Amino acid sequence: MSGFGPEHLPYGIFRRAGEESRVGIRFGDGVLDLAALARDGLLDEDPALFAQPSLNAFMAARPEVWRRVREALQALTAGPDAELAAVPLDEAELLLPFEVGDYVDFFSSLEHASNAGRMFRPDADPLPPNWRHLPIGYHGRSGTVVVSGTPIRRPHGQRRDPGDPRPIYGPSTRLDIELELGFVVGVPSAHGEPVPVDGALDHLFGVVLLNDWSARDLQAWESRPLGPFLAKSFATSISAWVTPLDAIVGRRVPAAAQEPEPLPYLREDPWALDLDLEVALNGATIARTNARHLYWSAAQQLAHMTVNGASLRVGDLYGSGTISGPDREQRGSLLELSWNGAEPIALPDGSTRTFLEDGDEVVLRGRAGEAIALGEVRGRIEPAG
Amino acid sequence: MSGFGPEHLPYGIFRRAGEESRVGIRFGDGVLDLAALARDGLLDEDPALFAQPSLNAFMAARPEVWRRVREALQALTAGPDAELAAVPLDEAELLLPFEVGDYVDFFSSLEHASNAGRMFRPDADPLPPNWRHLPIGYHGRSGTVVVSGTPIRRPHGQRRDPGDPRPIYGPSTRLDIELELGFVVGVPSAHGEPVPVDGALDHLFGVVLLNDWSARDLQAWESRPLGPFLAKSFATSISAWVTPLDAIVGRRVPAAAQEPEPLPYLREDPWALDLDLEVALNGATIARTNARHLYWSAAQQLAHMTVNGASLRVGDLYGSGTISGPDREQRGSLLELSWNGAEPIALPDGSTRTFLEDGDEVVLRGRAGEAIALGEVRGRIEPAG
Repeated sequence: MSGFGPEHLPYGIFRRAGEESRVGIRFGDGVLDLAALARDGLLDEDPALFAQPSLNAFMAARPEVWRRVREALQALTAGPDAELAAVPLDEAELLLPFEVGDYVDFFSSLEHASNAGRMFRPDADPLPPNWRHLPIGYHGRSGTVVVSGTPIRRPHGQRRDPGDPRPIYGPSTRLDIELELGFVVGVPSAHGEPVPVDGALDHLFGVVLLNDWSARDLQAWESRPLGPFLAKSFATSISAWVTPLDAIVGRRVPAAAQEPEPLPYLREDPWALDLDLEVALNGATIARTNARHLYWSAAQQLAHMTVNGASLRVGDLYGSGTISGPDREQRGSLLELSWNGAEPIALPDGSTRTFLEDGDEVVLRGRAGEAIALGEVRGRIEPAG
Repeated sequence: MSGFGPEHLPYGIFRRAGEESRVGIRFGDGVLDLAALARDGLLDEDPALFAQPSLNAFMAARPEVWRRVREALQALTAGPDAELAAVPLDEAELLLPFEVGDYVDFFSSLEHASNAGRMFRPDADPLPPNWRHLPIGYHGRSGTVVVSGTPIRRPHGQRRDPGDPRPIYGPSTRLDIELELGFVVGVPSAHGEPVPVDGALDHLFGVVLLNDWSARDLQAWESRPLGPFLAKSFATSISAWVTPLDAIVGRRVPAAAQEPEPLPYLREDPWALDLDLEVALNGATIARTNARHLYWSAAQQLAHMTVNGASLRVGDLYGSGTISGPDREQRGSLLELSWNGAEPIALPDGSTRTFLEDGDEVVLRGRAGEAIALGEVRGRIEPAG
């Protein structure tokens, strides 16, 4: 089933021409219409839960309902003579799977953070002094999170070129990608009540792949002292399919001890997710890495994000941060792959790249073993308007 | 009418005990129920537009509807024998007036930015090199925007005390306020299409007062390199009443020329809003300032926020940044008023403050001349949980 068999069953929102959007499950090369399955009595749930333009209502129905639906779907799809009417993929328009509450982006790969430090602060410790004590993060723009396949228009903005006293305005000349995992919150939390690290995963509905498009020239100029803003807010792409957390819990593996030991509210047995990830540019694989390279776990990120009493809402999304490994080909951004433009990468067609050119198409892919292919994230760069 | 007469007519969401929440207008010491007025035929609109738990549906109805409703209400409230059944304020629970899309906070007061620079970078130019070229901003947490009156629990978090090599965890010891104006977006924009500076105000529905509560100790430790995160995300308070932009356009006044001249996409005839603002702490006024002290205008902020193609949604909120003037008593934060704790301020009860203590109550107030009192923002500090 090429990664979309009964072990996976990721959720999305789809629409056939002329019809309303509703919740679907990717199964093989088709989409199962959950509203129709419920109406036909094959799922013991109210069809209205699935006749929705986003997954939010289903996510808000709580984990016991998610598990009941998943078990029912696994039974329906596992049988050798399962006769389920699926919508062919080429007849299904895939939409943004959920309405994003708050979007937070972390910076939790040791190699990515170290590479950034080596490039931009060559005379200092590559890691900021706070990096090993907390999962650094910031809020991004939830209104510009888009689904895989959405064209990405090259943004305009201000940059200041080396040696120039003043900034200039124009299309970004250093447009980049960031390969990330995105975690989707399904269970809200009360304002004022931190979520403990050992209860954090109970709030997660699932994961997506995420491309945090980044305009490096805008970022360098605007970010002091309050962090990235327009360099990131023009678009963030996520996969159309949300992989339930239950489908990948088996990929949880022990991780190296964190040194120094984190403060008690972040302390847990170190773990990571063994998910193979890759970046393709115009059809050529330019990076292969693994989510095991993340230093801070999804549970630590969520505990940190709420330790000040900030509440969670259904549909909150947080990104892991760019996932880079120790080897050169394991770097999850062009910034690192081309070492800030100093070392162009070669493509099979004979061309080279430092940053993205108009017309370039980037695809992020991931696998949880043979059985599960994470939904891909695809985006093509359109010229600045 | 103490600032809430026919010239003002701000919108909010209210609820009487046992009833549904709906749209109301503050008029004198009462609340006019717009759903009831529409049902009674006094407003020529569908009552469903006002029988809503947020202003978003009404805001989405576009400016021609806002203007029609405002004109009808002005006619209804202006007459000497207007007999309008108002809900007494003490019977109306006031709720968050709109569902916040994205929340962005700017840093647009020259004096506030300069004061921060003098305190934290004493050996450098007080202003960052980008400050006079663009309105610096960052995204905040929209899910923790709360209505005036909501108690504010002192947040926990990490801080690193001077001289300590490692951070500690505990309740914030430097809890602060930021006096700001908030601008509420009512007209969305298309993804990929920047809003020009001369069309920016057409997207605004109104303004609120905003208190950007800030934990300075958390902020100092966490903010490098990606900006403030948990130091701000525990709570942001806004007034219950949204003052329509139409009510304060008359307070638009010319401002000094910006030097250097901004890039063309930010260029306009300099202007500001003449709004008197004040901060009260436990009943004593500790700061009086004016929105005229903002360097970047609301139009420039909106044009900048969208210049990279980022879209606007109904309910997006952006803060002006702390509003400080050149005189000491015009500073809009305790950080500045107490000069980072070095110069405690004296209160009438004989006590002093550097930052907020448990039980302290802060109220932000504002006026647009005699006729219009902006909705207040009130918040009392509760001990850390």
